[in-house]
Amino acid sequence: MGATGSIGRSTLDLIGRDPASFHVVALSGNRNAELLAKQAIAHNAELAVLADPSGYSELKEALAGTPVEAAAGEEALMEAVGRPVDWVMAAIVGSAGLRPTLEAVRQGTCVALANKECLVSAGDIFMETVAKSGTRLLPVDSEHSAGFQAIDLNVRESIEKIVLTASGGPFRTWTAEQMAKASPQDALKHPNWSMGPKNTIDSATLMNKGLELIEAYHLFPVGPEQLDVVIHPQSIVHCLVEYSDGSVLAQLSSPDMRTPIAYSLAWPARMWAPTERLDLVKIGSLSFEAPDYERFPALRLAREALESDNGATTVLNAANEIAVDAFLDCRIGLPSISALVAAAMEAADRAGLSKPRSLDEVLDLDEQSRGLARSLLKELK
Amino acid sequence: MGATGSIGRSTLDLIGRDPASFHVVALSGNRNAELLAKQAIAHNAELAVLADPSGYSELKEALAGTPVEAAAGEEALMEAVGRPVDWVMAAIVGSAGLRPTLEAVRQGTCVALANKECLVSAGDIFMETVAKSGTRLLPVDSEHSAGFQAIDLNVRESIEKIVLTASGGPFRTWTAEQMAKASPQDALKHPNWSMGPKNTIDSATLMNKGLELIEAYHLFPVGPEQLDVVIHPQSIVHCLVEYSDGSVLAQLSSPDMRTPIAYSLAWPARMWAPTERLDLVKIGSLSFEAPDYERFPALRLAREALESDNGATTVLNAANEIAVDAFLDCRIGLPSISALVAAAMEAADRAGLSKPRSLDEVLDLDEQSRGLARSLLKELK
Repeated sequence: MGATGSIGRSTLDLIGRDPASFHVVALSGNRNAELLAKQAIAHNAELAVLADPSGYSELKEALAGTPVEAAAGEEALMEAVGRPVDWVMAAIVGSAGLRPTLEAVRQGTCVALANKECLVSAGDIFMETVAKSGTRLLPVDSEHSAGFQAIDLNVRESIEKIVLTASGGPFRTWTAEQMAKASPQDALKHPNWSMGPKNTIDSATLMNKGLELIEAYHLFPVGPEQLDVVIHPQSIVHCLVEYSDGSVLAQLSSPDMRTPIAYSLAWPARMWAPTERLDLVKIGSLSFEAPDYERFPALRLAREALESDNGATTVLNAANEIAVDAFLDCRIGLPSISALVAAAMEAADRAGLSKPRSLDEVLDLDEQSRGLARSLLKELK
Repeated sequence: MGATGSIGRSTLDLIGRDPASFHVVALSGNRNAELLAKQAIAHNAELAVLADPSGYSELKEALAGTPVEAAAGEEALMEAVGRPVDWVMAAIVGSAGLRPTLEAVRQGTCVALANKECLVSAGDIFMETVAKSGTRLLPVDSEHSAGFQAIDLNVRESIEKIVLTASGGPFRTWTAEQMAKASPQDALKHPNWSMGPKNTIDSATLMNKGLELIEAYHLFPVGPEQLDVVIHPQSIVHCLVEYSDGSVLAQLSSPDMRTPIAYSLAWPARMWAPTERLDLVKIGSLSFEAPDYERFPALRLAREALESDNGATTVLNAANEIAVDAFLDCRIGLPSISALVAAAMEAADRAGLSKPRSLDEVLDLDEQSRGLARSLLKELK
C-alpha cells in the first residue's frame, strides 16, 4: 500500500533484488497510474489498485495486454488488502491509510507500518486490534525500527527509558528571530534524510519527533515519562533503549530507509541491503544535545497531547497537516505552525474533547479538527 | 573465583544489594585472607578458599567461630568448583584461572568469564569443552558483554562485522618519541577505567584490545577478518555488531564494570545496578578514530597470532606478561613490551610451534614461553 511513494519505491527496490524470495500479490498507489503500472509489471503483481478512481482508465490502459488486473477506488483497495498475503507494507500517507491498514491488522497479516496516522490519530484502537488479532506489527520509521531492534521484550520490566534521536533539522542552530523569517525553501533543506515535503517540514519544526514520541508510546511497553528525545545532528544513532543494569542498546546505520524496510521484510531473519555501511572512523564524531522546547514548541505540544489521553493527538495531527500546507503555500510563517496547532488543541479542549472509541469517531474528529484548524487559520491571517 | 579482586568485589557488591535473590556457596581468593574472610562472613558463604596455601592459618583464624568452612590450595579450589552451583564468576587473573574455570565449564555450570587466559591461551580447548558440556558462557569484559548483548545468534550468517572499541589509553595522542620515554606512572593513568596495573599497561599498549580480538574470535561466530577495532576515547560504546541490512547494534554504558557483571548475574533477565546512567547530552560527543598500528604494534601482533592458529596466542600472552612486569619494574621501556612479544613469537615459531591439544600442553607452552621471554629480556637489556 503506497507503492509509488518513497517508502514503496524503496521496498520494491529491495524486493526486486531478490525476486526468488518474494511474490508480489498486489500493489496500490494513490494517483500515479503510470508508475504503478510499471511497478506491477516489473514485479509480476497479480493486481494494481489506484486509490483515486479518476486514474482508473489510465491504469487499465497501461496494463492492457499484461496479466496484471487493474482496479481503483477505496473499495478496490479494501478488496486488495483482503487477499491472503503474509506481509503488507502500510505506506499510504495520511489518514487515508487508516482504514486499509487497520483492515490488514484485523485479518492478522504481518504489517510493516510506515503510516504515522494509525498510531498518532488512532493509537489505542489500532493497538487493541493488533492485540486481538495477534498479528505482528513491524515499525518502519527508522527510529521505531531501531527501538524494535534494541528492545528485549522478554525483560520489559527492566526497561528504564527509550530515547529517540532527532537530527534537529535545518533550523537547529537558528535563532528564534531567524526562524520567524524562514521560508519553505529553507525548511525543505533537510541535512540528512530525503523525504516528502510534509515530513521534511515536520522535521524542521520537530513535530515529526513529537509524532514519533506518540507512536513510540503505543509501540513499546513504556509510559510517556519514560520516553525522551535527544538531538543528534548526524542521524546515525536512531534510538536507544536503557535498561535497569545501566546498559543501553542502540541501533545505528547510515541514513537510508532501505535498512529499516529490509528489517521489516526479513524479520525475524535479516536480508542483505545495498546500503552504505556505517564507517564511524569516517564520520569521526557523533554529537548529542538537549532539544530546545522554546524554539521547537511542537515537541512540547505532542507530549501534552500524549499525556492528556483524550483524543488530543488526533487534533494535533490534523491541525499540523493544515498548518504545514499553509506554510508550504507561504500563507503562514514557520512559528505559526505550532501556534495554530496549539490554538486548535485549546479550542478542541474547550469544546469538550473525548477519546474516540472507533475508527469512525477518529475520522470524524480528524475531519472536525481540520475544519477547526482552517477557521483558526483565517483568524491568524 | 577471584572474589578479592576488582571484578570479585564488584560482583559481591551487586549480590549484597539483593541478598534474597542469591545464595553464595563458595568464595575464593588468592592471598588476601583478611578480605576473603570478611566477604565470606558478610555473604553467608558456606566455604572460603585461598589459592595460596600459605595463608590458610590466617584464613582459618579469621573464620573461627563462624559457620564458614576454610580451605586453601589448588586442590581445595578445585573441590570448591566441584560443588553444585548454578553460576560461577571466573575472575581469577592469569593462567592460574585456566584449570578451575575449565572444570566449571566441564561440569556444565553457567560461567561468567572474566579471566582472559581461558580464551587467549586455550581458546579452542575451552570452546570445545563449552560445546561438549552445553553450558552457557557469559563474557564479563565490557566489550564482549556488549557484543553478547548486541548480537542476534539467530541470524549469525547475517553478521558482517564485529567492532570492539578501545579508549586508546593514556598514549593515544603521544608521538612515538614521547612514548619511548613513557614511565610506568604515565602508563598507569588510564583515562576511563580503574583496573589492576597489568590490565592498565595492556590498555596503554593496546595489547588489551589485541587479547580481546582473540577472545572475540572464540566467543562470536565470525572469522578474524570480520573483527575490527576502533579507537573511541570516551569508552561509552563498547562493541558494535554490523548486520547485512546495514543495521549496527551497539551496547553503550558509563564505564562501570558492574553493568556487565550485573548482566552476567541476571541473564537472560536484567537486574538493577547502581551505576551512573548514561547521559549523552552531558557527554556531548562520541568520537572514533582508526587505531595506529605503528605506534601500537601489539594490536598487529595479536592479530597475527590469531591468524596463525598454531599456539602463537599462548606465546603472545605469556611473553606479554613477562614484558609488562619488566616495564612496571622499570627494567624496559614501553616500546620494548611489543618488541619482546614479537621476538618471543618469532623465536617460538622458528623453534617449531604447534597448536596445543590439551590444557597440559597449553600450560607447558605458557611456561616455556615465559622462559623464552625471560631469556630474550636479558638479551634486550
